[in-house]
Amino acid sequence: MPITAPPCPRIDPDTLSCAVTARVLYADTDKMGIVYHASYFRYLELARVELIRAAGIPYTQLEAAGLALPLSDIAVRFSSPGLYDDVMTIDVGLSLVTRVRVHFDYRVHVKAYDREGLREDVTLLTAQTRHACVRREDARPERLPISVYEVLAAQVRAGA
Amino acid sequence: MPITAPPCPRIDPDTLSCAVTARVLYADTDKMGIVYHASYFRYLELARVELIRAAGIPYTQLEAAGLALPLSDIAVRFSSPGLYDDVMTIDVGLSLVTRVRVHFDYRVHVKAYDREGLREDVTLLTAQTRHACVRREDARPERLPISVYEVLAAQVRAGA
Amino acid sequence: MPITAPPCPRIDPDTLSCAVTARVLYADTDKMGIVYHASYFRYLELARVELIRAAGIPYTQLEAAGLALPLSDIAVRFSSPGLYDDVMTIDVGLSLVTRVRVHFDYRVHVKAYDREGLREDVTLLTAQTRHACVRREDARPERLPISVYEVLAAQVRAGA
Amino acid sequence: MPITAPPCPRIDPDTLSCAVTARVLYADTDKMGIVYHASYFRYLELARVELIRAAGIPYTQLEAAGLALPLSDIAVRFSSPGLYDDVMTIDVGLSLVTRVRVHFDYRVHVKAYDREGLREDVTLLTAQTRHACVRREDARPERLPISVYEVLAAQVRAGA
Repeated sequence: MPITAPPCPRIDPDTLSCAVTARVLYADTDKMGIVYHASYFRYLELARVELIRAAGIPYTQLEAAGLALPLSDIAVRFSSPGLYDDVMTIDVGLSLVTRVRVHFDYRVHVKAYDREGLREDVTLLTAQTRHACVRREDARPERLPISVYEVLAAQVRAGA
Repeated sequence: MPITAPPCPRIDPDTLSCAVTARVLYADTDKMGIVYHASYFRYLELARVELIRAAGIPYTQLEAAGLALPLSDIAVRFSSPGLYDDVMTIDVGLSLVTRVRVHFDYRVHVKAYDREGLREDVTLLTAQTRHACVRREDARPERLPISVYEVLAAQVRAGA
Repeated sequence: MPITAPPCPRIDPDTLSCAVTARVLYADTDKMGIVYHASYFRYLELARVELIRAAGIPYTQLEAAGLALPLSDIAVRFSSPGLYDDVMTIDVGLSLVTRVRVHFDYRVHVKAYDREGLREDVTLLTAQTRHACVRREDARPERLPISVYEVLAAQVRAGA
Repeated sequence: MPITAPPCPRIDPDTLSCAVTARVLYADTDKMGIVYHASYFRYLELARVELIRAAGIPYTQLEAAGLALPLSDIAVRFSSPGLYDDVMTIDVGLSLVTRVRVHFDYRVHVKAYDREGLREDVTLLTAQTRHACVRREDARPERLPISVYEVLAAQVRAGA
């Protein structure tokens, strides 16, 4: 059975907003001289926790309610390599929220002049992470509290 | 524009073969008590380099030829959480090889008895990584040497 | 031959200044629920590159001059565990600069109210990293340019 | 107050024994083309858990007894850079065991022929990690069970 679906995430850049910027460290690079692909995931985590914190739902509040949002799916398309000392801008948005599922879309880019000699914004990657709502104590599916759901769902509408 | 494509990679488990096993470390876990999602990527790298080494093409040979295989796409579907001290089996196969593209499919699982009390094989995730062949010196697209192409393409047919 | 020297770094907190703050991610934690010890090293790197950037010597300038500052020694004493969502303050200072050696001292702490319920500043760790100046092309020892040396040495005096 | 103590760990290589070998991945390297310093810590963890497992005390057994061994101190001296695709040998030994403290010493090296063109064993680093025995539930100091203590203490004597 051949692979039929491209893993490229279909995200809508217009619905994303800047959550954070971060500078590339040696810790993030590999011997190819570029950012190692797995290094980006901590920046995606940083962006999504700041997004929901800004919306009024710090992740620690979900934990205190006995909930967790583990990843069920990741899709990333890499467009251009990140370089040491780049100031990356991580845009993030909520693209789907139900009582039991939350999807985040991302675009990691470097703005003009945030890399020496860079004159135009360059996209490093686009990505989507999908999360299930579960109980922390046994990882069983659980519904988001209605109050949390409403706040997050409003973010989806605001983005779109 | 809503997201229309599921990021789930469509892999064919029958064409994969075991490349490596590895034990989960504290370094791999997070405070949820499970393997942090980004921790798996180094194990996927380990599996694919051992697969091509076993096929007779150590990655250092590609480097010596001035080539690199950076990732263009990642797709992962997480099925079940990995736990500390699990002995993970990482199955890997080549699902597509052209002169300029290489796709690897993966299944990370824990076999019965490779976790205390585990009686049945459990799949932690399936994944696909897509790679472009480029020149190391300037990251421009480059074709694989025909001899390398033939060895890798034979792996695809062997798997299928 | 028994071990005779304690690995505890002897740093002088009075000579350190705040370089950066950073928030603890899930990526940084382990299943003990605290920051995994190796996760701190990227924050130490972040602090020292911002320190020398603030002094007028971005690390990329050293690279452009064909130089690198690889680590020769690390010493860390852990005092208290870092927790998820902590806002860590990383203080850093230069404690020794010669033409061929650079030492950085660090204190990572969480200020009062930068962790929920925390009323007093708590030190997570103190550390020292020692670096040798080498040529990038062959990793042979090399002297810092006198202009760089003078700028960095002034930082040591400023601290002390 | 100047720094007075060298962070170099005083280890006795004669008391170490090989615990594990591991091959350097791209994930471990940085843009200097060598192993990033913080990448070694997971290999040190791997070595020490295999050492105590071989002694009959898997770490999960300590966890089941409500105990943990968090790090209190780290000291590392780097001697030579690790390179991509190196097969590293991690030697480890217990240098001190009391009811409340455990010290591990390490030497990470590459044996002749475990790197292309390498004719002599090369030491990458020596290190020591110090651990305190604590209760998992509240991180308070706790004594090792006498049976565990005796097994581990015998390892120190065996090494010396």
